[in-house]
Parts: sequence; structure tokens; C-alpha cells
Amino acid sequence: MAGRDGTLLRPAQRIAWLRLIRTDNVGPQTFRQLVNREGSADAALAALPGINQRLGRSTRIPSISQAEDEIAGLDRLGGRLIGSGEPDYPPLLRHISGAPPLLSVMGGHNLDLLRTVGIVGARNASSAGHKITRILAQDLGDARYVVVSGLARGIDAAAHRASLRTGTVAVLAGGMDRIYPDENIPLAQEIVANDGLLLTEMPLGWEPRARDFPRRNRLVSGMSLDIVVVEAAKRSGSLITARLALEQNRDVFAVPGSPLDPRAEGGNALIQQGARLITSAADIIEVVATADPGRESLFEPDWLPDADYLDDQPPSAGDREKLLSALSVTPIPVDELIASLALPVATLQTLMLELDLDGRIEWSSGQLVALRF
Amino acid sequence: MAGRDGTLLRPAQRIAWLRLIRTDNVGPQTFRQLVNREGSADAALAALPGINQRLGRSTRIPSISQAEDEIAGLDRLGGRLIGSGEPDYPPLLRHISGAPPLLSVMGGHNLDLLRTVGIVGARNASSAGHKITRILAQDLGDARYVVVSGLARGIDAAAHRASLRTGTVAVLAGGMDRIYPDENIPLAQEIVANDGLLLTEMPLGWEPRARDFPRRNRLVSGMSLDIVVVEAAKRSGSLITARLALEQNRDVFAVPGSPLDPRAEGGNALIQQGARLITSAADIIEVVATADPGRESLFEPDWLPDADYLDDQPPSAGDREKLLSALSVTPIPVDELIASLALPVATLQTLMLELDLDGRIEWSSGQLVALRF
Repeated sequence: MAGRDGTLLRPAQRIAWLRLIRTDNVGPQTFRQLVNREGSADAALAALPGINQRLGRSTRIPSISQAEDEIAGLDRLGGRLIGSGEPDYPPLLRHISGAPPLLSVMGGHNLDLLRTVGIVGARNASSAGHKITRILAQDLGDARYVVVSGLARGIDAAAHRASLRTGTVAVLAGGMDRIYPDENIPLAQEIVANDGLLLTEMPLGWEPRARDFPRRNRLVSGMSLDIVVVEAAKRSGSLITARLALEQNRDVFAVPGSPLDPRAEGGNALIQQGARLITSAADIIEVVATADPGRESLFEPDWLPDADYLDDQPPSAGDREKLLSALSVTPIPVDELIASLALPVATLQTLMLELDLDGRIEWSSGQLVALRF
Repeated sequence: MAGRDGTLLRPAQRIAWLRLIRTDNVGPQTFRQLVNREGSADAALAALPGINQRLGRSTRIPSISQAEDEIAGLDRLGGRLIGSGEPDYPPLLRHISGAPPLLSVMGGHNLDLLRTVGIVGARNASSAGHKITRILAQDLGDARYVVVSGLARGIDAAAHRASLRTGTVAVLAGGMDRIYPDENIPLAQEIVANDGLLLTEMPLGWEPRARDFPRRNRLVSGMSLDIVVVEAAKRSGSLITARLALEQNRDVFAVPGSPLDPRAEGGNALIQQGARLITSAADIIEVVATADPGRESLFEPDWLPDADYLDDQPPSAGDREKLLSALSVTPIPVDELIASLALPVATLQTLMLELDLDGRIEWSSGQLVALRF
């Protein structure tokens, strides 16, 4: 992989990172907050029982041997773990909000992950949709762009197949040993055989659930310089990917279609909302060629304290009540919360970390926060 | 028709206008320049022999009885002539550059020509294209918009048919008695029977030639608040209409289509160049509802002297040579010509008027001028 800057994790560090990210209710945001607060993953693991005690609950922290088992299991499959600071970590992913601290990957040793275009679309794609996808993916590949997609039926699979020879990345919604759908297991094997890349943030053995797919989609767009939507109905997963891509400051391209074709509704609507209409790989390359791989997400959370910040004053019960009453199931920007609550940012951060660990709040786009249903 | 402001031409004035506009090499631009110079159409007709003598050529000026014959012939068909200052003249057309001084019209007594949307597209349209056109024209009609088109085969005819009941305008490329193509003569009759409007600037008996169609297209867009392109190949007449519409400061809407469909190429390309993607009449109405019927053309020629300006100093032969050597078959903006030649604007205007009457120069968009091939 290109962009090989970074430092390798020491083996014990890797174990600690894995244990922390596999702890209940510790997502990428919480992982970063804990490591920032405590100074290291090890220190965060040591602090967790105390925090949990204050919350009056227990959290299952995976043991060292459980972490070692996952690493060994991945190794037997031919896969490996990559930490967000390590040289092989996909460089574009580093810039997204909520980047996974650890990725499980397989294959993809020689891909230039700074030249990536995501192609997503309908599972029930038309034959015209398949054909356009093939043409776009082949032409992008011939122009030395790596094609990123989600290994779903339809457009995703067509995009991977057409770029097998030139380089493709499949982002999974489940564990590395839980390829979904079953019909695409042979395709996943072909991808690895062609030194394409399989990639997931989910643990080994994880069966993908409905809500893991939008989560996966943020990695498809996050891996990519820009995103192409081929056939998408209104209110489809592809449109979620498009929204995430925009939040990640990626350009979104859409293939147009007849107003009489329901499968064109999503793409046409995207174009009306400002996505670029494209009809060929040349249209895409014209824009992607000047995309800035290091550009920031539009909604990068900038309210997080510095890494060396430590809050010694535990928040009061009154502060917690104040925060809880300000939150609802409707996501609101953290900035607004800070502005409206008049609590010290450090206190708020501690409270939100606790609520997060308690499974009571939910982050979206790294800057919106809501109570869980 | 709506927008009934203006003054009726006196019968003798109407005859003079008709004789002047029917004179060889007198188009709308030259008509206006001559009337501005000489003070009236009658005075222009009186001045023409002198100008022609200086040019060393003769110009066939239609006689009074020839003009009366055309008016009588139009009357027998059930049509009438409308001068650009008269109340029934389509109000939006008044604002375009090169508006015809006289129009021959039939029907359309009760149309609101301030609420007009042009629909143009391919002659060899697909059945999907026909269907979309029907839906758009019907829905626009139901929203009390009048549909304007060019009575061609394919999209044009479909647009007229679908708006027969609610109001439609057909702009012809030939004379009122030379409906083209023959297969659309019954449609033209139906339009008039439904009090739709037929309209042309060409003389009775004029068989449309290839170059009359782009000329007609400027009236289709000029009659319309905005223009919809339904199915158009690259380098098609519909794209010419779209370009003219943009020059006339109209919004251009385009219906998207699959990149695999050659008939969608023009529409998709228009969208890439900034036309609005539309999939329904609602998309159109959202924009048209706030269109300004009185907006100016983007390229209104503003260099013409005032109506009472008279140039008594004939230009020298040297000035004429200077102008001729500055012109080529490549159209250039008049503004640039003025800036580069360092001739008095009045002199330049006289020279260009003479060259125009001599059939040696050609105007496009009212502001670009070139030598004829």
C-alpha cells in the first residue's frame, strides 16, 4: 500500500488497542476520547472499571487471551490487524471523523490507496446499471484508479468484478470470516487472489446486522477520494453513502437515468442536490485527478481536548441531569450542546464519555449526538 | 392574448413595415437600424434606393400591392399580422434581441403568453421520450402554463398534442401556408381549432430551408419563460435552441437519461454544463414560477444609436476597407469591433447597415457579426 508513513504498534500495544476497541460501547469516538484522557489504551483499560463503578454498571472488557485469539484467528485466515497510526493503514481513512483505530484486512499489499474511487449502487440493479458499472470500473482501473465498494449484490459486485485485474477494495459490514452475502464469498476469494483488499472494522465472527451497513458505508466513502452512485432508489443505502461522502468532503458523482426508471430516482435526485452528473470514467477522472487526499471532513469534531488533557474533577449529578435533559433522540450538533449548556467543555466531555460507555447516547457523523431509542 | 399594451399600426404603416421587412437582406436587425436612422419605415423605404445606389446595386423592394396581397392571403387563411409594438404581440418576444418586427399568426386569442414553457427535443424520439413529454406537457398545462414548441416530428409534436386542451403555441420555420412537415398539417389544424397559436415571421408561401429552423428556434425560446429539452442527441437542433435560450437569459431544463442511450447525450451534456436536471413538471414550475418575464437578453446589443440619430456624413471608402479587413467568417462581438477599429460608432453603424443590405455580413445572436461565406 502507498502512503507508508506511521509507526508500528508494539505487540502489547496492539493487544491493548484491540481489547479497548472490542469493549462494549467503545466505538472509534470513545476509543479516542479514552486514550486522549488516560494517555494510552493500557491506561484507558485500567481506568474503565473505575468509570463503570461510578456509573453503577459493569462492562465486559475482553481479556488478553481473547484478544490474542482474535489476532491468531485472523492470521489463520491470512489476514492482519492494522492500527490507525501504522504505515499500512489506508491513508484517506485517517482523515475521516470516526476512523476505526484498528482494521482487519486481507490482501491488498500493492494497492495505491491514494488513488481510490468508490462505486456504490442498487442491489437490484438493472442490466444497464451493471453494464455502466463495468464500463466505469474498467476505465477507472485502466487509468490506475483503485475501485472501492461494499461487496453487496448488484452494482457493488459488478464494480469489484470489473476491477479485479486492476485493483479493488471490498469493505465488509461483518467480520472477516462472515462474508455477506454468501453468494459473494467466491468473489471475495477472487479479490484476495488478485491481491485486492478486504477490509473491516468488525471483530472476527461478527454477523453483520442491518445497522452495520450504513456504518460500513462511511468506510467505503472514507477510503475513496470520491464516490460514484450508479443506480439508487430514493431512501437507499447508496444515498446514505453519498451523504456520508459529502460530510467527509468527498465529491459525489451520479449516473443519470430516465425519469421513468425508478432505479434512477436516487441518482437524479443527487444531481438536483448538487452531485455531478457523470456519464463516463473521463468525467470522474477530470475531478478526481485534482482531489486533495488530505482534505478534512466537513464536520471534523474540533471540540475534543488535547491528548494530554486530564480531568480530575468528576462531574456532579446535577451536571449529568442537565446534560441528559438537553439531549433527545433527535441528533444535535455537539457545538450547540456546548453553547447551550454552559458547562465546562472538560466536564461535558467526561459526561458524554460516561453516557457513551453506558450505551445511552449515539454519535453520528462524529459531531451529532442523540439519546439512543 | 395577455400583456395587451401597445399601439395598433395604422394600415399604411403596416403596409410600409411589411414592405421593409420583406425587402432582400432586411432582417429584424437591419429593419430596426433603418427605422432608427430614417425615423419611420416609410422614410427607410424612401432612403433605400439612395443607399443602394451608393452600394452600386439594386434591391427589390416589394410594392404596396404585393404587401396588400400578402395581408389579404393571410386573412383568407384566417391569420393576421402583428407588429412588435401592437397589443397582441407576444410580450416575451419583445425582449429578445432580433425580435421580428412583424409576425404572422393564426388562432391563440385567449392564451396567456406570459405563462409559457418551451418543450423541444429529438425528431426521432424514443417511446419513453414521447411519454415523458406527454406527462410534462399535460402537467404544465394543468398548472395553466402554455406549451411552446416547433411543430417538428417527435418531441415537438408530442408536446403540442398533450397541451392541445390547455394551450399550445407552434412556431413555424416557413410561411403560414407552408406547414412543415406535411404529416403535422392535421396537428396544426387541431391547434388552431383548439384556439392554440400558430406563429411565423416568414412570408406567406415561404418553403422552410435548413437554415430557417435555427432561426425559428430563437422564437421558440424567445416566446418561452424557460425551455425544457427532452431527448436530444449531441449537435442537434434542440441544443441550438438551448444555447439561444441561454443567450436570451432563459433557464434551460433537461431531462436526464442513461449514458447508454445516445438520445440522452444532449440532455446529460446540458446538465453537465449547468442546465437544471428535471424529472417532473413540478421541478420546472418551481423555477418558472419566479422567472422574470421582462428580463433582458444576456447579449442585448446596446451600441445602436438612438432613434433620432441621423448620420449625414457618408463613410469613406477607406473606412469601408478598414471594416472589411477586420471582419472574417468567424463571428466576433460588435463591441470588440468598435474597440479595435477606432471609427466613430455612427460611421461603423452606417457601414454595417450597408454591408448588411448588400448581403455581405451575417448577424448571430444580435451581437456577433461575420462575413458571409
